Amino acid sequence: MSTADPVAIARALLTCPSVTPAEGGALTTLEALLKPAGFTVDRPVFSAPDTPDVENLFAAIGGGERHLCFAGHTDVVPPGDVAAWSHGPFEGAIVDGLLYGRGAVDMKGGVAAFAAAALDFVAERGPDFGGRLSFLITGDEEGPGVNGTVKLLEWAAARGEKLTACVVGEPTNPSVLGEAIKIGRRGSLSGTIVIRGVQGHVAYPHLADNPIRALPAFVTALCVPPLDRGSPDFQPSNLEVTTVDTGNPATNVIPAAVRLAFNVRFNDHWTIESLKAELRDRTARAAQDEALRGSGAPLVDYELAFETTASDCFLTTAPDLVEGVADAVEAVVGRRPELSTGGGTSDARFVKNYCPVVEFGLVGDTMHKVDERVPVADLLTLKRIYRTFLDRYFPV
Amino acid sequence: MSTADPVAIARALLTCPSVTPAEGGALTTLEALLKPAGFTVDRPVFSAPDTPDVENLFAAIGGGERHLCFAGHTDVVPPGDVAAWSHGPFEGAIVDGLLYGRGAVDMKGGVAAFAAAALDFVAERGPDFGGRLSFLITGDEEGPGVNGTVKLLEWAAARGEKLTACVVGEPTNPSVLGEAIKIGRRGSLSGTIVIRGVQGHVAYPHLADNPIRALPAFVTALCVPPLDRGSPDFQPSNLEVTTVDTGNPATNVIPAAVRLAFNVRFNDHWTIESLKAELRDRTARAAQDEALRGSGAPLVDYELAFETTASDCFLTTAPDLVEGVADAVEAVVGRRPELSTGGGTSDARFVKNYCPVVEFGLVGDTMHKVDERVPVADLLTLKRIYRTFLDRYFPV
Ligand SMILES: [Zn+2]
Ligand SMILES: [Zn+2]
Repeated sequence: MSTADPVAIARALLTCPSVTPAEGGALTTLEALLKPAGFTVDRPVFSAPDTPDVENLFAAIGGGERHLCFAGHTDVVPPGDVAAWSHGPFEGAIVDGLLYGRGAVDMKGGVAAFAAAALDFVAERGPDFGGRLSFLITGDEEGPGVNGTVKLLEWAAARGEKLTACVVGEPTNPSVLGEAIKIGRRGSLSGTIVIRGVQGHVAYPHLADNPIRALPAFVTALCVPPLDRGSPDFQPSNLEVTTVDTGNPATNVIPAAVRLAFNVRFNDHWTIESLKAELRDRTARAAQDEALRGSGAPLVDYELAFETTASDCFLTTAPDLVEGVADAVEAVVGRRPELSTGGGTSDARFVKNYCPVVEFGLVGDTMHKVDERVPVADLLTLKRIYRTFLDRYFPV
Repeated sequence: MSTADPVAIARALLTCPSVTPAEGGALTTLEALLKPAGFTVDRPVFSAPDTPDVENLFAAIGGGERHLCFAGHTDVVPPGDVAAWSHGPFEGAIVDGLLYGRGAVDMKGGVAAFAAAALDFVAERGPDFGGRLSFLITGDEEGPGVNGTVKLLEWAAARGEKLTACVVGEPTNPSVLGEAIKIGRRGSLSGTIVIRGVQGHVAYPHLADNPIRALPAFVTALCVPPLDRGSPDFQPSNLEVTTVDTGNPATNVIPAAVRLAFNVRFNDHWTIESLKAELRDRTARAAQDEALRGSGAPLVDYELAFETTASDCFLTTAPDLVEGVADAVEAVVGRRPELSTGGGTSDARFVKNYCPVVEFGLVGDTMHKVDERVPVADLLTLKRIYRTFLDRYFPV
């Protein structure tokens, strides 16, 4: 019986300085593991204007109706103040049962655990195990995200890959391995409002029209009432105004315009389009608010625009994936994980356009921090969970 | 009888490119006129860190209890798009009875009219006319104003000059010469408010505290209710928020702070101190506003600061000055001018700390614009008004 070591694989990945967009040897390390085991390995490089080129990896083995994909990334955020680390961020030191390094939990450790599980699975079952198993690994998750998962999914689809289920290996557990699976994410919608007035001198306000007088009505209209109170599966939707800017350095000048930007994290009460309509309504009402402008003031001249990067809310219900992963977790650690939809967005929002997707990985409490680290025991346990799920998804 | 020509003097001044802080030959032109007539002329240069050195001029003649000062400036704002001018901004072209040039009305034309009146007056009455007559001319009225009138007044006081009345030659007439004298100005107070929250990720708002949620309460508290409805002598006080800035480029980040700046133009209902107290009260109440932040939200952490450049409101009532200038206007143009306190600030706010001050000059409608120009007839009329006032202020 083969026993691929997730700790050794994680250390090999952690010693690659793969800060986005650098490949740093991480994908090469993965390729060197998967190819000898029979995986086909592709390393597509994607480009776009104003962003660095990014290397990605797609590896696959087997054939059949069911195609399980493991999605993740080997790029990492910068280590920050290296001197503040107890052990070098790219050394792979193991001290007191803890493996230190940038990416230990987000998410080289998760990649290593799945790679070890997959290598054992393929070694035992052989390449003709009755389905298809793939790795979709990007080097652009922590960066602009332009030349990563989105393009890699398109690239794979164009080559005829038809995913039936996907596990994203992001750290999903707040404090203990096995606490939580992510089965959905709120959507995200960003936009801007520019309120225009008439520039002038503060001593002659009747000749000007200060757009900042209309600002409270717009901010208030965006923020209250709350968009909803949550749903059975999701946290409440929430809007935050992230910036308000005028850039007027002159204390005696009434500015011509003020701009604000906002972001909404929204649940299944909304689609991107219904949310846009709601925000259009709210801003149109704000434009008629006369509290600060005086009765008879003209309607406010404003422009509401939405970013094109919006993503819809999603919820995965496919039982063979959701219950399958939950069963695997329970079988290994003895507790049933929570099915969560909390927190921010991840690349799962792109995968969900191709197949059902859940996220399950390590404990995230040290991610993006100094001394990011993972218990060696967690790597071994996570490998067992992934392996258990593989056996259930592809029964003999 | 001497007949100094205000048009010739104005043209000589207009051909000097004295854009702040350049002297451009303008003060030298003035010195060359006044010295031969018996004036003592000083040219003090003032300096301060981070501002350019500025040349100024103080010229005086005569002795006695009554000391009338004419205050003004020979610096001008930049011409802007020179190609857009019908005639060069520093050419002194006269076309169809109009003298063109940057500073024609603001305020080389006013300086020229007073110089011509003073030269005639001294030529006829001699240096022992029973009083003292001076020119207090700065080259830093359109600039930072640091090395100009404020320091020149201090400089003159230190040398024993005791002004009893001052006429500032700024353009005070909206459209026709003789319409309005300025006998006071509203005060000016600027300040900033920084509202602080807790930075965080938009997907985890419970771990952050968005300072922009408190912004509407602060803007509204500053703007409503109005500070007052005006007074018998003054327009209503008015506050404008001139800029609101956050500078947060990340659409997924809740910012740590937002900053706003405001300026108040205030009338005789207020002193600088009473107005500061009112604004402290208003912002303190805004900090308790829970409309957007939810009941039980902590008080907003904010900082209100005032600029040190505030100036108090003032109103000049001295009849020999106010009625004296009004009588002179009426005697020459046949209409009684309005006694106005409208509009912005001027260097009169500094002079008022030394002696009663009024402002009277040309028609301001083209000031600071392309094709700034003055009717030749207005220069002649203004000279006659100034001369008439001189004769009344210093009766034989
Ligand atoms: Zn990650
Ligand atoms: Zn001026």
